[in-house]
Amino acid sequence: MIFSVTILGSGSAVPTPSRFPTAQFVSCNNRNILIDCGEGTQFQMRKYGVKIQSLQVILISHLHGDHFFGLVGLISTMHLLGRNSGLRIVGPKGLEEIIRSQLEIGHRKLDFEIEFKLLEKGEISSVYDDKLIEIHTFPLNHKVPTHGYLIKEKPTELNLKKQKVLDFQIPLAVIHQLKAGKDVLDEQGRYWKFKEFTLPPKKLLSYAYCSDTKFDERIIEHITGSTVLYHEATFIEKDKLRAKKTFHSTANDAATIALKSNVQKLIMGHISARYSNELEHLKEARNVFENSIFAKDGMMIEIGK
Amino acid sequence: MIFSVTILGSGSAVPTPSRFPTAQFVSCNNRNILIDCGEGTQFQMRKYGVKIQSLQVILISHLHGDHFFGLVGLISTMHLLGRNSGLRIVGPKGLEEIIRSQLEIGHRKLDFEIEFKLLEKGEISSVYDDKLIEIHTFPLNHKVPTHGYLIKEKPTELNLKKQKVLDFQIPLAVIHQLKAGKDVLDEQGRYWKFKEFTLPPKKLLSYAYCSDTKFDERIIEHITGSTVLYHEATFIEKDKLRAKKTFHSTANDAATIALKSNVQKLIMGHISARYSNELEHLKEARNVFENSIFAKDGMMIEIGK
Repeated sequence: MIFSVTILGSGSAVPTPSRFPTAQFVSCNNRNILIDCGEGTQFQMRKYGVKIQSLQVILISHLHGDHFFGLVGLISTMHLLGRNSGLRIVGPKGLEEIIRSQLEIGHRKLDFEIEFKLLEKGEISSVYDDKLIEIHTFPLNHKVPTHGYLIKEKPTELNLKKQKVLDFQIPLAVIHQLKAGKDVLDEQGRYWKFKEFTLPPKKLLSYAYCSDTKFDERIIEHITGSTVLYHEATFIEKDKLRAKKTFHSTANDAATIALKSNVQKLIMGHISARYSNELEHLKEARNVFENSIFAKDGMMIEIGK
Repeated sequence: MIFSVTILGSGSAVPTPSRFPTAQFVSCNNRNILIDCGEGTQFQMRKYGVKIQSLQVILISHLHGDHFFGLVGLISTMHLLGRNSGLRIVGPKGLEEIIRSQLEIGHRKLDFEIEFKLLEKGEISSVYDDKLIEIHTFPLNHKVPTHGYLIKEKPTELNLKKQKVLDFQIPLAVIHQLKAGKDVLDEQGRYWKFKEFTLPPKKLLSYAYCSDTKFDERIIEHITGSTVLYHEATFIEKDKLRAKKTFHSTANDAATIALKSNVQKLIMGHISARYSNELEHLKEARNVFENSIFAKDGMMIEIGK
């Protein structure tokens, strides 16, 4: 199974020639998810080989333009290219109205259904759940209601120790139970322990997304132990006052959250256009949390690799 | 004085790698005008060296997304980059509400004023007028109310035949009248004919913009004699039925309007993504109107050159 994140936009509110506004494509166990959708996201998807019609779920963190102005254009293009399969969009209250009113004003009647799940300020809930993955939301701390997301793999059936299963001629009904991680007492009174006949479970991977937010330790409980954390780092410590005033984080803030959340890797992004490069951000973050990288448009990160 | 058009987007509703959705930048006698503003227009402006803050007037033809989805992002960027000078936006009724509601939802309070001039369906009027240029609107024929625009230079003072003015020692008060194109009888009873002392007036240039529209000869009266005509040519004749159904034009239609309007040059654009290039469009148009070109992103056309 592949679990990867492709950065479509790593800039902040003012786009620059090398950084589009925020958007990320997450592929997790064949589920295709877009997180945030700044202006031009559909162009970036095409540029980096992400199929527009493959998207099943779109998660919007908040209603600042650099995180959602590309959504209505993306939806229009999906329609024009003949989409008829449904789309789920999760985002703050108000999102559905603004999208639908833009479509209506141009008399754009979609040939596919959009199911909106609208979030209340501060909401903590499960926003998507199927056989293979689950997505949770939790609050960030920004100027407007802002929602973080956690995408997690779900436990799947255990893999059998094949030779052992053959040697013991285990009945089919028992095998199903063992694969589900259950010990079984069969009709002949034999007791089968699943740990003896199955390989240890694969470690479940997860990706936590936190943009935009000021430094807030209340986030930690929602993302602890994630494999990879994306946390915005708009500023560096020398511009700490500006970070506070604008409800954004520094690289040091992001790394501190990563460290305290016990994640394996930190991806920073949302760099302010005032910085010509991300070297100071990296230096600052790695002083606190060594396995830190800075997002670049087009970068692909495999979760857990 | 420079009067030029820079093509920022020459594609139609579905963007392609080489063609952004519709937008054009017009510089006319130091007035900086944007016509239409599809998604990504602000990126194209930066790419082709058009200064975002230089814009004074934005004209929107209609409320299909490929003509206005980039407007709210452009306005946001203007604000974030510190704009404080006013902006005039002309477009269909409904435009102001959709833009303001998107700004409000993100609590984006602008530091500059936008003066909207909202057009009724079918409106024929002057939408901008100053010392040097004037802009008129007229109706096109599309699925939703759609407005064409005509940008015209205004007559300026005539240039004097300097040697002659010196030879005759013409009084200053008389000179002003002659430059304004008026014959003068002065206090000494002398009669001055302006044509004798001034050079012939410069031919006034104009640019007519027609996108999107089906073939409609009622457009001609509004654009007759324009120096350059932009007319959409989404399709070619073999897809004529599709053109009719979608209220768009073929290259043949565009060239016919150009011919009957007695313009000097035709620029076609808004090519459907179904065509891999514009060669058939050019061939078809030039059979009717030789001086036809097809817009390309980044192309700059000087009006009257």
